[in-house]
Amino acid sequence: MTPPQVFPPDVLHGFCERVFGRLGVPEEDARLAADVLAASDLRGIDSHGVARLPSYVGLLAAGRIDPRPVIRVVRESASTATVDGGNGLGLVVGPKANAIAMDKADAAGTGWVTVCNTNHYGIAGYYPLRALERGLIGWAMTNTSSCVAPLWGAEGMLGTNPIAIAFPGAQEPAIVIDMATSAVAYGKIEIARREEKRIPDGWALDREGRATTDPAAMMDGGSLLPLGSDREHGGHKGYCLGVMVDVLCAVLSGANWGPFAPPFVARQSPNPRSVGKGIGHFFGAMRIDAFRDPDEFKQQIDELVRTLRATRPAPGTRGPLVPGDPEREAEALRSRDGIPLLPAVVEELRAVALQTGVRFD
Amino acid sequence: MTPPQVFPPDVLHGFCERVFGRLGVPEEDARLAADVLAASDLRGIDSHGVARLPSYVGLLAAGRIDPRPVIRVVRESASTATVDGGNGLGLVVGPKANAIAMDKADAAGTGWVTVCNTNHYGIAGYYPLRALERGLIGWAMTNTSSCVAPLWGAEGMLGTNPIAIAFPGAQEPAIVIDMATSAVAYGKIEIARREEKRIPDGWALDREGRATTDPAAMMDGGSLLPLGSDREHGGHKGYCLGVMVDVLCAVLSGANWGPFAPPFVARQSPNPRSVGKGIGHFFGAMRIDAFRDPDEFKQQIDELVRTLRATRPAPGTRGPLVPGDPEREAEALRSRDGIPLLPAVVEELRAVALQTGVRFD
Repeated sequence: MTPPQVFPPDVLHGFCERVFGRLGVPEEDARLAADVLAASDLRGIDSHGVARLPSYVGLLAAGRIDPRPVIRVVRESASTATVDGGNGLGLVVGPKANAIAMDKADAAGTGWVTVCNTNHYGIAGYYPLRALERGLIGWAMTNTSSCVAPLWGAEGMLGTNPIAIAFPGAQEPAIVIDMATSAVAYGKIEIARREEKRIPDGWALDREGRATTDPAAMMDGGSLLPLGSDREHGGHKGYCLGVMVDVLCAVLSGANWGPFAPPFVARQSPNPRSVGKGIGHFFGAMRIDAFRDPDEFKQQIDELVRTLRATRPAPGTRGPLVPGDPEREAEALRSRDGIPLLPAVVEELRAVALQTGVRFD
Repeated sequence: MTPPQVFPPDVLHGFCERVFGRLGVPEEDARLAADVLAASDLRGIDSHGVARLPSYVGLLAAGRIDPRPVIRVVRESASTATVDGGNGLGLVVGPKANAIAMDKADAAGTGWVTVCNTNHYGIAGYYPLRALERGLIGWAMTNTSSCVAPLWGAEGMLGTNPIAIAFPGAQEPAIVIDMATSAVAYGKIEIARREEKRIPDGWALDREGRATTDPAAMMDGGSLLPLGSDREHGGHKGYCLGVMVDVLCAVLSGANWGPFAPPFVARQSPNPRSVGKGIGHFFGAMRIDAFRDPDEFKQQIDELVRTLRATRPAPGTRGPLVPGDPEREAEALRSRDGIPLLPAVVEELRAVALQTGVRFD
């Protein structure tokens, strides 16, 4: 296999920014969108970074995303807001709605914002990291196009519907949780197929709804399983979490929920039936001093982190990690050494360069 | 095996109420505590209902729970409060703190209450059901004594830390989620041991932190696995959720977190090290009209429920349930036919009757 090619983070950031600009996204918004993608690559979540640029470009070029959305608060209370994202890039609508949640928290102790008429917003973990910068606890969720079967279902009815939340420490790094509510990410199925490997039991169903270990059978009209996989191992719980995210992001905001969430790639047509506008996000922000002295809180987070790290390791392991460790390690390495991109991704970015006339090198 | 004996719900409710009263709990609080236990039995969650009365009695009789707690709001903002439960019964502190969250929501759109210095509060699902009665979306979490290993750990560091949330429908029943963040409940291990059966892979570790299918090996100093079980199936995600619940309930409130949460039975001594007061809960309430027209919201919940029910069934199943279905079915049956109790539970209740001088029949 050809080894990945390595790029300095700012080269990729600059490329994304100029591409968005060329497609009509205003300068400041283009920079924001590039920030979100760059954060994903830096944190080692390759599937949600610059590798996704071609999808955003495809939808912008096809007129299915508005590069200059009118983003409006359509309803609000002291601690809440509902935002209509004007069918803009989720990478732009997301950060702006998240900022509204943080402003509400400053005023009312907490802030909670549900968003309709938006699109894919990158990694969920980006948003609580912004809250940490303001000394807040941050939450983010989003619904996504459906590929996850409810327990005992034979077809994808929910998205991978991630949940992210972050808690600041004092001396220790923050606890940063960012997890899909499916057993695995779709990307892992794709990798197994490329490498012609079987996938483990508990990941996927084929198009008939039968358990399968063949990645191609999943990709040919099959579905992913929820976290917990089957009844015996708590698959109903992963399904419950997927429903929770769908309701908070989409039903509460007036977006498309469940199987009606529009697809993220231009080559797929949206579901002919619509039950709302675009997809949905949900953001939360909590002022720590609305609950407890912030220094005390952060010292206790430090203690919790140290206590978890001191857990006796299971045989054959080096012991538990703290949520956020893998991403922090990736960020330290990649900030220094650059972002590795697979040849197929580099090729797609060159195609974007050609299509938009923005230089990529 | 001797068949279960069946009791009318109000007989059990009355017994619990009088027992709490005899142990010094004021009349109104005793009724509230009995309500929470009765809700659990009615909803089919046998492990958290009247079967737990002996544990509450043991802790009250040993002076480890205060029957007449001073419950205080120690910090607050427009949308938040921190409650010190005065080391009262969680069955009393919980409903009162939950009511504060709902009152905050009425005023500020949402209300979020973290609670320290409290004890076991029954089923998490009880609390969002109260929010539904007031037309609100309700959330509840609690930390519990530690028995769940972090992924790659060899010992229990977190409780089963449940998450509950409920969303009201219009014609269709509400979506009611109530789930532990471990792969299975401890009660299932106990049942397997009693029946001398093996447990499935992915449920538990023995005292050395090795995977085990022997329930006795788990119960002899072993631990439960988080939802997702192992790395390949997302055990890190269940672990993340357990940490999230612990922080919101205990670190944010000033309660004992992780392995320091006090045990729920009088025969176990508390951990000699304390990092806070009692255990912790977290409650949330959201006014629907702070986000969207409530009728529209409820109609969309109905549509979502119908859509999920119409999912093509997986082979060998009758198709997906909607979160809350099993508990609603149990409630319909048991309201009519009574609550079945195992002979061992009946015997323990007779012992409580003897101990307290409250008649049980």
